[in-house]
Amino acid sequence: MGSPMALNLLRGGSELLVYNRSAEKTRPLVAAGAVAVASPAEIGRRGARVVFSMLGEEASVEAAILGPDGLAEGLAPGSVHVSSTTLGVALSRRLAEEHRRRGQRYVAAPVLGRRDAAAAARLYLLAAGDPVALADCAPYFAQLGQRTFTLGEDPAIANLAKLVCNFMIAATIESLGEALTLAGRSGLPQRQALELLTETLFNVPLVKSYGELIAAERFSPAGFRLPLGLKDIRLALAAGEEARVALPLASLIRDHMLTALARGQEDLDWSSFVKVLQ
Amino acid sequence: MGSPMALNLLRGGSELLVYNRSAEKTRPLVAAGAVAVASPAEIGRRGARVVFSMLGEEASVEAAILGPDGLAEGLAPGSVHVSSTTLGVALSRRLAEEHRRRGQRYVAAPVLGRRDAAAAARLYLLAAGDPVALADCAPYFAQLGQRTFTLGEDPAIANLAKLVCNFMIAATIESLGEALTLAGRSGLPQRQALELLTETLFNVPLVKSYGELIAAERFSPAGFRLPLGLKDIRLALAAGEEARVALPLASLIRDHMLTALARGQEDLDWSSFVKVLQ
Amino acid sequence: MGSPMALNLLRGGSELLVYNRSAEKTRPLVAAGAVAVASPAEIGRRGARVVFSMLGEEASVEAAILGPDGLAEGLAPGSVHVSSTTLGVALSRRLAEEHRRRGQRYVAAPVLGRRDAAAAARLYLLAAGDPVALADCAPYFAQLGQRTFTLGEDPAIANLAKLVCNFMIAATIESLGEALTLAGRSGLPQRQALELLTETLFNVPLVKSYGELIAAERFSPAGFRLPLGLKDIRLALAAGEEARVALPLASLIRDHMLTALARGQEDLDWSSFVKVLQ
Amino acid sequence: MGSPMALNLLRGGSELLVYNRSAEKTRPLVAAGAVAVASPAEIGRRGARVVFSMLGEEASVEAAILGPDGLAEGLAPGSVHVSSTTLGVALSRRLAEEHRRRGQRYVAAPVLGRRDAAAAARLYLLAAGDPVALADCAPYFAQLGQRTFTLGEDPAIANLAKLVCNFMIAATIESLGEALTLAGRSGLPQRQALELLTETLFNVPLVKSYGELIAAERFSPAGFRLPLGLKDIRLALAAGEEARVALPLASLIRDHMLTALARGQEDLDWSSFVKVLQ
Repeated sequence: MGSPMALNLLRGGSELLVYNRSAEKTRPLVAAGAVAVASPAEIGRRGARVVFSMLGEEASVEAAILGPDGLAEGLAPGSVHVSSTTLGVALSRRLAEEHRRRGQRYVAAPVLGRRDAAAAARLYLLAAGDPVALADCAPYFAQLGQRTFTLGEDPAIANLAKLVCNFMIAATIESLGEALTLAGRSGLPQRQALELLTETLFNVPLVKSYGELIAAERFSPAGFRLPLGLKDIRLALAAGEEARVALPLASLIRDHMLTALARGQEDLDWSSFVKVLQ
Repeated sequence: MGSPMALNLLRGGSELLVYNRSAEKTRPLVAAGAVAVASPAEIGRRGARVVFSMLGEEASVEAAILGPDGLAEGLAPGSVHVSSTTLGVALSRRLAEEHRRRGQRYVAAPVLGRRDAAAAARLYLLAAGDPVALADCAPYFAQLGQRTFTLGEDPAIANLAKLVCNFMIAATIESLGEALTLAGRSGLPQRQALELLTETLFNVPLVKSYGELIAAERFSPAGFRLPLGLKDIRLALAAGEEARVALPLASLIRDHMLTALARGQEDLDWSSFVKVLQ
Repeated sequence: MGSPMALNLLRGGSELLVYNRSAEKTRPLVAAGAVAVASPAEIGRRGARVVFSMLGEEASVEAAILGPDGLAEGLAPGSVHVSSTTLGVALSRRLAEEHRRRGQRYVAAPVLGRRDAAAAARLYLLAAGDPVALADCAPYFAQLGQRTFTLGEDPAIANLAKLVCNFMIAATIESLGEALTLAGRSGLPQRQALELLTETLFNVPLVKSYGELIAAERFSPAGFRLPLGLKDIRLALAAGEEARVALPLASLIRDHMLTALARGQEDLDWSSFVKVLQ
Repeated sequence: MGSPMALNLLRGGSELLVYNRSAEKTRPLVAAGAVAVASPAEIGRRGARVVFSMLGEEASVEAAILGPDGLAEGLAPGSVHVSSTTLGVALSRRLAEEHRRRGQRYVAAPVLGRRDAAAAARLYLLAAGDPVALADCAPYFAQLGQRTFTLGEDPAIANLAKLVCNFMIAATIESLGEALTLAGRSGLPQRQALELLTETLFNVPLVKSYGELIAAERFSPAGFRLPLGLKDIRLALAAGEEARVALPLASLIRDHMLTALARGQEDLDWSSFVKVLQ
């Protein structure tokens, strides 16, 4: 996800410093005019005023931002770190605290949309943080997506919003998995059942595309790998635990994902957890 | 639901015989030109070629069609019974068998849409049965709805399709209930979370309207009462049991509905089962 | 189950009339002194004062008691029907009503224990009904089991009690299934985990025997077949629905049983539903 | 739990150094002959060869063992740390690694039993670790409990075993909660249902005592507070996630516990989560 976003920032006319643990991943960006650096800290030390991070796992965020040679070490006071990774509420709070201690500014701006939406600058950004920092980021957000939802001053709320959205997507997958399995086993072809749903009440691309994947059992190549999906559901459950909200459907999905992983579906799309229903 | 449908048939130019257990419910139809009769059997005996039934509970269908003075007693061989009630697969099969024994024809045509859609002739009809019988019914279907989905020759498949749709609606309610509860308790106002969902991935009236009910906790007056919702989920679970398909999300919803009924929510909208999450 | 019970009644000195749909199943009883008759009704017509029924499915009970040539047709007023089948609350109420209408007496006395306990007259009887009728049955109960629990005047309560017991057994199986799967996959051998449980907090034959079946994956021959187990859980869920009590663990077990049946475990022991966890 | 255990070690004739964050909690032990010290590290520095830790939360263990002035700082190479807290598998592994790095020995020995069992030296110890270290600890284990189960060389397995046991207890509570609620609401008094269970298949103190608490709704004073119970279920779920084992019953229990906490049951016994069923 980070590459197409970075490319859009370059196209927007920004000077861009880039870092990735695998240097080769930055080559296309360097070819397009970015400057590769040796560590996240160096991005800060070279005077970047606004720094986006987009990573896969919480542990990578901890390492890249708070670890040795991490961004927090190098970022100048007053500069902004925009975290676009899907993070848990707790880690987002910890980042906020660590940046505050150093006089750095911190904005959470996770995104909705897959790689193709990122490439087309059609992402939705869910942004929260200090209003001035958000205003400073606004031109960049406009280069990355079709719309920014501003969700207040507490960055962790933007992360929560992203978890809520991903939970809703997973819930849609579970619902479709059960509905289409029931249909297919009872004599109503899955595609006919899906057409019925998408041409009446559920006329949205999300239902069409996941319904199609499920009906065709086309879970590879993965648009979003199952272990990453499990991570997001785990973070939603953790947010629920903190707020003392039971999320029984999220628990159900988590259990199906675990069973799917135990069956070796690690490299399949996250929607493949519906196979455990079949 | 039956009244606005009957009115549309009248407007379409049909001669209409009507029966309801409470005679007063037929008065507006009689005022509009329908003829009230004393029993379902009499509708048949007076020579009706196509008879629609639309009732609330399976027991009412059994009584009105198969009981003493029921439609099956009076319907002439070759005439068609169109059952629009949300029925289980088993009862639909039994109706098919009873009509077949008597040389009568049977079509299942449950509908998607509430009372306002019925009044506006904007229903979706999910129809299955003998193709010739379906062709005979087509002009009437056109007077009742905006589109007819033809789902093959086995009437029970149309009933199954309706159960699949209602399960998907209930699943959407459960998903929204969990998502908005998590949001609200974590500091993201429910309406803001809902707007985020409906202006990005879930841009459909269904999500907007149920989301609005949930955020506003406006479960009365009921668009569709909770006990009827429980009936539909129970029928979906029974269809699953027959096909040996576990529907864990449907089980979850059923359990929430039962808890909601135990708390006295009998007269509230079926979406009110999300209150057990709060 | 019926055969060893009948044999114990014979041993107790009773004259015994027997009926089974498969006549050959009554042969060992006839050899032991019982008289086979041609229908349940005939048992009544020949003047039996106390008649036990023990069957597998609710449909069999309906046929044998309430159907043509069923017991209710022939049983003399004042005679007692003792129903030992695991029935649902609704059917038990219907039997009570049908017998009452005919002046017959009705007692529900389902049993705890498998075939070997029946043979050894070590069953537990859960009995409810009219106190005088229960007193009349007491000598027979003493010939069948080690102890009778008297649960009041409403026969349906005895059936409910039996469903509660069977739910608790199924819940134990589910618990052991999850616990031992977690242990085994985490490096603690299942038998060691089981020993730990049964030599400390769970020192009962039930946990030992099911734990042993699960650890050894020895689900055949079936002590109690999976479809019968599903029937009992379904009846417990129906009782819950009537009382508006959600039983989420029973729902979970039902879903696992359905998945197990879909995988072809129809002839395995009911405890085999834990295989879906593995 | 730590106090009665410490007292038994004193009675066994050991010289005992004690530490607790609240110094006053050590007073009765000091009165009985123990010597209070100022930090966990000091216990080690004064030459203790075997050190037991028994704490409530994982965070307390991390602080007391691995934090500043923690035990790991002061413990001499070759000395043994026996961790009796209910820990997760991951933290147990981390302790093992940290002690190994320092040449210290580490044994996990969580216990089964409440405070009264601890006082009576009737605990069960679930012990794992290096065999020589276990042998060194054996005399102390004998002073603390009625039996030690030795579970191999990997300390984390003893922690897992404890989580398996606590899950089984929680599963019993959930089962009883559902069974007794169904009984009570259907007309079978809860105590009668409980007696039926405990005098037939479930004749163990665990079922009797929790059944009695549930039937009497006597959840205060807490034998084991709900937040601690939630901790244990969370750790079991985390162990399941690591081993890719779905534990749907544990998920169900977790959700009920969260709902119970949201209703303010924080200071009630952990079995009080069954109130959400009622």
